[in-house]
Amino acid sequence: MALRARALYDFNSENPGEVSVKENEILTLYSERDIDGWFEGTNSRGERGLFPASYVEILRSDAASTLNNNSSSIENFSKPPAFTSFTQQQPQLQQTYQQPSQGSDDDWDDDWDDSSTVADEPGTVGGRYHEYEGNGPSTYRVSTSSMARGNAQQAKSSATVSRNLNRFSTFVKSGGEAFVLGEASGFVKDGDKICVVMGQYGPEWQENPYPFSCTIDDPTKQTKFKGMKSYIAYKLTPTHTQTQVNRRYKHFDWLYARLVEKFPVISVPHIPEKQATGRFEEDFISKRRKGLIWWMNHMTSHPVLARCDVFQHFLTCNSTDEKAWKQGKRKAEKDEMVGANFFLTISTPAAPLDFQEVESKIDGFKTFTKRMDDSTLQLNATVNEFARKQITGFKKEYQKVGMSFKVLSQAFEMDQQTYSAGLNQAISFTGDAYEAIGEYFAEQPSKDLDPIMDLLCLYQGHLANYPDIIHVQKGALTKVKESQKHVEEGKMDRAQAEGIDERCNIISCATLAEIQHFHQIRVRDFKAQMQHYLQQQIAFFQKITGKLEEALQKYDNA
Amino acid sequence: MALRARALYDFNSENPGEVSVKENEILTLYSERDIDGWFEGTNSRGERGLFPASYVEILRSDAASTLNNNSSSIENFSKPPAFTSFTQQQPQLQQTYQQPSQGSDDDWDDDWDDSSTVADEPGTVGGRYHEYEGNGPSTYRVSTSSMARGNAQQAKSSATVSRNLNRFSTFVKSGGEAFVLGEASGFVKDGDKICVVMGQYGPEWQENPYPFSCTIDDPTKQTKFKGMKSYIAYKLTPTHTQTQVNRRYKHFDWLYARLVEKFPVISVPHIPEKQATGRFEEDFISKRRKGLIWWMNHMTSHPVLARCDVFQHFLTCNSTDEKAWKQGKRKAEKDEMVGANFFLTISTPAAPLDFQEVESKIDGFKTFTKRMDDSTLQLNATVNEFARKQITGFKKEYQKVGMSFKVLSQAFEMDQQTYSAGLNQAISFTGDAYEAIGEYFAEQPSKDLDPIMDLLCLYQGHLANYPDIIHVQKGALTKVKESQKHVEEGKMDRAQAEGIDERCNIISCATLAEIQHFHQIRVRDFKAQMQHYLQQQIAFFQKITGKLEEALQKYDNA
Repeated sequence: MALRARALYDFNSENPGEVSVKENEILTLYSERDIDGWFEGTNSRGERGLFPASYVEILRSDAASTLNNNSSSIENFSKPPAFTSFTQQQPQLQQTYQQPSQGSDDDWDDDWDDSSTVADEPGTVGGRYHEYEGNGPSTYRVSTSSMARGNAQQAKSSATVSRNLNRFSTFVKSGGEAFVLGEASGFVKDGDKICVVMGQYGPEWQENPYPFSCTIDDPTKQTKFKGMKSYIAYKLTPTHTQTQVNRRYKHFDWLYARLVEKFPVISVPHIPEKQATGRFEEDFISKRRKGLIWWMNHMTSHPVLARCDVFQHFLTCNSTDEKAWKQGKRKAEKDEMVGANFFLTISTPAAPLDFQEVESKIDGFKTFTKRMDDSTLQLNATVNEFARKQITGFKKEYQKVGMSFKVLSQAFEMDQQTYSAGLNQAISFTGDAYEAIGEYFAEQPSKDLDPIMDLLCLYQGHLANYPDIIHVQKGALTKVKESQKHVEEGKMDRAQAEGIDERCNIISCATLAEIQHFHQIRVRDFKAQMQHYLQQQIAFFQKITGKLEEALQKYDNA
Repeated sequence: MALRARALYDFNSENPGEVSVKENEILTLYSERDIDGWFEGTNSRGERGLFPASYVEILRSDAASTLNNNSSSIENFSKPPAFTSFTQQQPQLQQTYQQPSQGSDDDWDDDWDDSSTVADEPGTVGGRYHEYEGNGPSTYRVSTSSMARGNAQQAKSSATVSRNLNRFSTFVKSGGEAFVLGEASGFVKDGDKICVVMGQYGPEWQENPYPFSCTIDDPTKQTKFKGMKSYIAYKLTPTHTQTQVNRRYKHFDWLYARLVEKFPVISVPHIPEKQATGRFEEDFISKRRKGLIWWMNHMTSHPVLARCDVFQHFLTCNSTDEKAWKQGKRKAEKDEMVGANFFLTISTPAAPLDFQEVESKIDGFKTFTKRMDDSTLQLNATVNEFARKQITGFKKEYQKVGMSFKVLSQAFEMDQQTYSAGLNQAISFTGDAYEAIGEYFAEQPSKDLDPIMDLLCLYQGHLANYPDIIHVQKGALTKVKESQKHVEEGKMDRAQAEGIDERCNIISCATLAEIQHFHQIRVRDFKAQMQHYLQQQIAFFQKITGKLEEALQKYDNA
């Protein structure tokens, strides 16, 4: 029997190879296995092609009902994820290169070929990352996050829990369900313990007692195989070791995959988007470095992420000691404390949380993230357009005024009157001043608007993570309610239900701690960036004023 | 036989009633008499309608050759004048109201009805006056000057010299030809004497020993006939009398006509353009007052215009003493020292000018005015567009940014975190600041660009006057050359030729003095206005900076 699926949303094909599907349309799949988030199949009109795996549900007799429940709650929370074009993603090829992210013993330096255009595009990890493309009209490249997370996490978590194959059920995939039902088990070493403490505003991650930061400098082009292959290396210097290590983008990418896999309710900051072409161009390198600096800042600011083994390995392992690197790499890839088991490592405050209060806080945060998502999207579009206007329109207007003053001064120079030479020069200088001001307008966005867009981009990434995190939390609360009902109906004994409550409390503490951390870095980041923006704007208008004052002085002796 | 004419330039009809003509096309006229500068006739395609009288030459067997010479020299100097639409000019009606400007004994206060829309549109006096219309795309209303001057001067000068009816011959119409040929005569009173002295830069008008200025304040709406008729009165206070007089726009218009008629080689500043609708609206009144102030400034700055009787009568005659007013009015209208006779009143420096040098200076000035005309036109268009952009686009961009910040702060207010309240307020304030800055951009053009446009408008008027002035000068030089030839050919005796030289010297002195005066006020005015513009721009950018600094401070305690 052919494998069938039902479309959950409309999908409109935008690229060759893709095929459009309508909500509720029944599709035939060639394989249950997706190609990097895409299924190949035939729609009801017999058209063959690719469509997003997360847009459909596979039709199975046993799983259909649960599946529908889960997908509907997702539908309420989030819009269907937008897709990058299929042609950009090259899924077949990516499939080959995605393996390292999921753990492989291949030689670290040879497993990806940086010289190949496609080689730097492993997988689709990296979320809904809005990229400002300076020249065109407001265009954003939007890639999907929940799908990427799903793929990365499935490998581990499906080994633990495999009763529900619904792709949408983050609760299941994250290991949240298994943990709540008491199915997770493992030995937690002291070093793996993660503490949630009760702070002024509710549960929060215990602060990192040894805070540090890390600089990212001098991206340099390096080659190997006698120049046949080349790549960009970044110099990382963590403050707590003061020892520089070299890392490539693919190392960041590997680390990111480990973190996403390990921490089900932590919002791992997205690494800068992959880009197929122009990887060695200065603009791109500088932009990627900026993105990595932002990412690093969020990593080192996070009490849990900053301290985890895989990140420490990444930051401190000597780049030339291949053996030590591989050892750490294998250890990270074999980490047992990921997904469901991550929750085992959490220790909570003594007093359990009130679940009603938790639910209300989560609902509030859900509303908040939706509003923040909308408003940052709007701000990003506005700022993008504002930058474009300054670079084109504003510049042009000021330069046209400058040019017209110049033309006037040239006409005046024909007056054959010596006493007007001073005025003519002053008007000519004024013309130059306005041309310079036009340039100031064109240069300014890179100083003040671009950083705002970088900030928004990073936060768009976090906001794309939260639906899944909230879903895990909601799933745990649902299990609590179900268990209460089961106890009332005599289907479950009280001790079992209390176990569920206890484990739900752990997930709740972790989620609320993460939300608290999010608010704190958000306030810190937006405050700093708004201040930076205003300072830059003030300096900009002062520079204009200075230029005009210089022009005005020319008239003193005119 | 039908009256025929040849088109000198292409004319493209733009309004109902007008008909297009091509250069050299032969046209049939219904009457030799133009309707306020327009002929009615039929073109070669049999289309009937109106076309500008100055765009055609009437075909007459006896005058054809002279006419062609004259018109070709005009063609070299100036572009064909642009025309306001026929429908706007309402020529038939204007014809009726133009008479007062040419002298009438009608009751001063009743001859025009200010309440009628059309009544405030007497004649077409007022030159190529570029008006900035704030809201639309860069539109200018352009009316013709040379034509208007031609009409106004024709009445008097054709009485003196009537040998050539060619409308183009300003030399003839101005009385220049009659004067050079020794045909002007009249008794010059001591008070009418006008001195040209030799200054540092060549001939110049003797300075006014009693310089004064005149303020124009409080335009107020006044009514008569029990409110049936209403008009705007301006309060004029000359510094040399310190006595306030009330004058209406039509008084300025009457005065302007007298001055244009009297002074053939003086560039009389144009009074602000007439406007049919909205005459009692605040914006219009304030704009007209600004125009009249500029006009008054140029009048009182001019050594000859400032002192002439008709202007003094206008400035000093008690507005309530109707008898005195009418007496002065009649005297001015009966002034014999106008046109050709004006030249009789000029006394020159002892040493006669070198005519070759004069011609070279005039040619240089001609080139200069052309360049200045082009560059002021361009600057005006640029500034007009720049103003429009600031009022619309710039404002919108800044306000969109402000709005997006506001929306972000509103989203942030939903975070349920007390510690972020300060940040939210600061971002909200920043949003307000950008909305305010948008307003600043919209308000600014009235403070800095409008005055530039007023200045350019006034100078466009002067530049429109100069072709005629130069034409008179050129005509005189031509007569000198002709007389030299006639003497060589024995057709004229030497004494007669010397008389022509002497009179051409008078015209040359007056013209060069006028040009010198033009350069001096030009340098004065452009310097002052450029300084004013830059000062306003500096204040503008400082205001923005101040607002941003205020916003930045809000983050200190956030």
